[in-house]
Amino acid sequence: MRSGIRRRAELSRFDEECDVIVVGLGAAGASAAIEARAHGAEVVVLERAAAGGGTSAMSGGVVYLGGGTALQRACGFDDDPEEMFRYLMASCGEAPDEAKVRDYCEGSPAHYEWLVEQGVPFNPVFHHGCSGEPPNEDGLVWSGSENVWPFDGIAKPAPRGHVPARPHQAGPLLMEKLVSATEACGAGIRTGHRVLELVLEDDGRVVGCVARAFGEERALAARGGVVLTTGGFINDDAMLEAHAPWLRRCSFRVGAEGDDGSGIRLGMAAGADTLHMEAGSVSLPVTQPWGLKRGILINAQGQRFINEDAYYGRLGEHALLRQEGRAWLVLDDGCFERVTYPRDVAAVGESPAELEQELGLPPGSLVATLALYNEHARKQQDPAFHKGPDYLTPLETPPFGAYDCTTEGSLYAAFTLGGLRTDPFGRVLDPAGAPIPGLFGAGRATSGLAVPGYSSGLSLGDGTFFGRRAGKVAAAEASS
Amino acid sequence: MRSGIRRRAELSRFDEECDVIVVGLGAAGASAAIEARAHGAEVVVLERAAAGGGTSAMSGGVVYLGGGTALQRACGFDDDPEEMFRYLMASCGEAPDEAKVRDYCEGSPAHYEWLVEQGVPFNPVFHHGCSGEPPNEDGLVWSGSENVWPFDGIAKPAPRGHVPARPHQAGPLLMEKLVSATEACGAGIRTGHRVLELVLEDDGRVVGCVARAFGEERALAARGGVVLTTGGFINDDAMLEAHAPWLRRCSFRVGAEGDDGSGIRLGMAAGADTLHMEAGSVSLPVTQPWGLKRGILINAQGQRFINEDAYYGRLGEHALLRQEGRAWLVLDDGCFERVTYPRDVAAVGESPAELEQELGLPPGSLVATLALYNEHARKQQDPAFHKGPDYLTPLETPPFGAYDCTTEGSLYAAFTLGGLRTDPFGRVLDPAGAPIPGLFGAGRATSGLAVPGYSSGLSLGDGTFFGRRAGKVAAAEASS
Repeated sequence: MRSGIRRRAELSRFDEECDVIVVGLGAAGASAAIEARAHGAEVVVLERAAAGGGTSAMSGGVVYLGGGTALQRACGFDDDPEEMFRYLMASCGEAPDEAKVRDYCEGSPAHYEWLVEQGVPFNPVFHHGCSGEPPNEDGLVWSGSENVWPFDGIAKPAPRGHVPARPHQAGPLLMEKLVSATEACGAGIRTGHRVLELVLEDDGRVVGCVARAFGEERALAARGGVVLTTGGFINDDAMLEAHAPWLRRCSFRVGAEGDDGSGIRLGMAAGADTLHMEAGSVSLPVTQPWGLKRGILINAQGQRFINEDAYYGRLGEHALLRQEGRAWLVLDDGCFERVTYPRDVAAVGESPAELEQELGLPPGSLVATLALYNEHARKQQDPAFHKGPDYLTPLETPPFGAYDCTTEGSLYAAFTLGGLRTDPFGRVLDPAGAPIPGLFGAGRATSGLAVPGYSSGLSLGDGTFFGRRAGKVAAAEASS
Repeated sequence: MRSGIRRRAELSRFDEECDVIVVGLGAAGASAAIEARAHGAEVVVLERAAAGGGTSAMSGGVVYLGGGTALQRACGFDDDPEEMFRYLMASCGEAPDEAKVRDYCEGSPAHYEWLVEQGVPFNPVFHHGCSGEPPNEDGLVWSGSENVWPFDGIAKPAPRGHVPARPHQAGPLLMEKLVSATEACGAGIRTGHRVLELVLEDDGRVVGCVARAFGEERALAARGGVVLTTGGFINDDAMLEAHAPWLRRCSFRVGAEGDDGSGIRLGMAAGADTLHMEAGSVSLPVTQPWGLKRGILINAQGQRFINEDAYYGRLGEHALLRQEGRAWLVLDDGCFERVTYPRDVAAVGESPAELEQELGLPPGSLVATLALYNEHARKQQDPAFHKGPDYLTPLETPPFGAYDCTTEGSLYAAFTLGGLRTDPFGRVLDPAGAPIPGLFGAGRATSGLAVPGYSSGLSLGDGTFFGRRAGKVAAAEASS
């Protein structure tokens, strides 16, 4: 039989039986397990590491939620599921999964309550001036491009980054709480269990899995189904080269050791389709502190290519995929400051022409770009890219300098967004769009909301949201 | 059992048996069938249409070949497999399949001879001044960006578009000859046969297929294997939206009715991996006649974004994927001429400023772009994009005009490049990289050489080349 699959008929017996098996104990897996338990299922969670947490526990902990959560209201922000829907449909790539986006937006306020019920603490304080994780315990941040062009003209902006209350440890805190809740709800957690194969009936139904634990193979049966929440594949060089080779240029790979695509391969072996395997979240955190948004990002032709006040996930995606990772942030003395995530100053010059020459740009290119930019900036305008007025200052005070934003010289943080194709119920689909009986998935083992077009918190967001869905539907499957 | 798969145990008998089944009679299928026959196999070809030909018969007929073919030599061009390898490795996306590219380049001169042996006529005359299919019977053209930046600095350029000798009918001619050769070699051709399922043994080996023909289901056994050569999926709206949504913006879909991804779905049902499902060939044929390369292509910010003398496949890819299909070709009176593929004049103006305004570009943007371009063009230089000197003329003679190159107002021709993952032997691979026993593939049902980074003729090229490989290996399988 093919790699990753065991025929039921080949197994003499199962070593253990339950209703729902969850593979992987990150945020998506914990959510699936908790929800399956809440719907009466007997649940076993298999985690290959020595403890739960996964990539979620290494993350910034931001959860993208909105539509008028209690936290947003407590911080004085109006939001609406419809406005959130408009933003995500406009920002999440060329053809977002409308049904998933719709469900996610409408269910978002209640999903926030659910996270709070699991013990995840959020402080009702909005933090201005940083993208993503704040340096303190504040609970709400901008984590996307909602309030900048072109999205501010498409949907009413609201900050939607919900951050658990522990400075620089929001991800670990989130996972402490979700793993505790998984334990408390009575799911059986088996660490050190690596799933090698899915067990299939001859009719294609997934009825369990074979795991290796402490040197032995164990076969586990699941009456309702198996939920794959094993993460993406940023740490598998072969898959990255085959499917998402551009991400190899990124210097920082965001992922636990387990992000090697194993669950994606298991799902495919069982007949699953995949979506957007080329896509990645690519962050270029060069405009922190925000004052640096007053600079201009230029490409190898000395041209601007984006509004610099866009979210750093959008900056990174455009710089990597449209400019081949060749970019610099040009500043004058008036707006120069130290960048939060250290990177090299690529060049300095007493004039734009000197800086242009130092950077090896085409003669006259940066000079022309700056002249046009300054002409409009003096009038608080940016007709080409529509940067907001807060950051429109002519750059004319020598010396001039440029931060290196090339993939060779700068921090690009990446993880994969492609994976198993699922429906809004967390069911894994085959290439014809039909659910594979008994197989579920959530989190970055699946293709989620953003493919590409990332706003931070969407992975913890769709992972927990659709993880719950998968757990619930698998539990119902077991009891039917 | 899952959609697309029939278990061998469920079949009482096969209606017909042979060594190798080929699914689809386009260029790849014909090549697979001919080569399998040449290696002694009993071959059945199943074609769902009423006659063979497929998309290959609708194409321009250009075959990308090189490394020093007899045709290249007869036309006075030196070429070398190593130079061809360098060009393809540099142009075919971020991570070309090196083993396939290597084989293709080294085998290219002999593959040309094979096509000639099948009766495909090529006239040993080089045609200057057009990209792709010439208007006459000339046999050799430029069909890529070999002789322009950046590739002219990476590999020694040579024209590699080999065109069968029938004006505007080179594709039909190619397929007349290949289908005739398929008939002549003794392969059994069954038209009107639509393959619904692959037949799998319990160990996963593909041993045949089930086809529907004239209202009845027929089961066919293949001792050596099944070769999927069913084409891409440009004509399947659901697959296009799911996998390659940007291609939906292209006004012209290059493909026969059968390009609905059916073979890709069959292969996946049998456990196949796919590669680069997002990728497409996107042609923007706006610089024909070549004199129009003297214009400048600009984006919605009034900036240039590419050397205009690049091949139109490269222009289209950059315009669609990096500029979101927002582009215009700006000309002055000195270089204006009628474009071969009609498109609208978007605007005219007595000055660059007037044209800029008419196009609704950001104030000052096109004026600045033209000023910088002209300054360098007067010195026969293009430091930003390195357009060749033949097309570097300052644009300064009023009136000025712009051809519409937006996806809304212009011809973009597209087909899909992603598909089943195969090795250089035409074997279809699973997600772990292991061959699926008995399953082979070639042509646009598979991911080929260009993913993306298209030069015309690569699909007919890799389809026929690796189609032959698949036929040969499947035949060997049958006799072992």
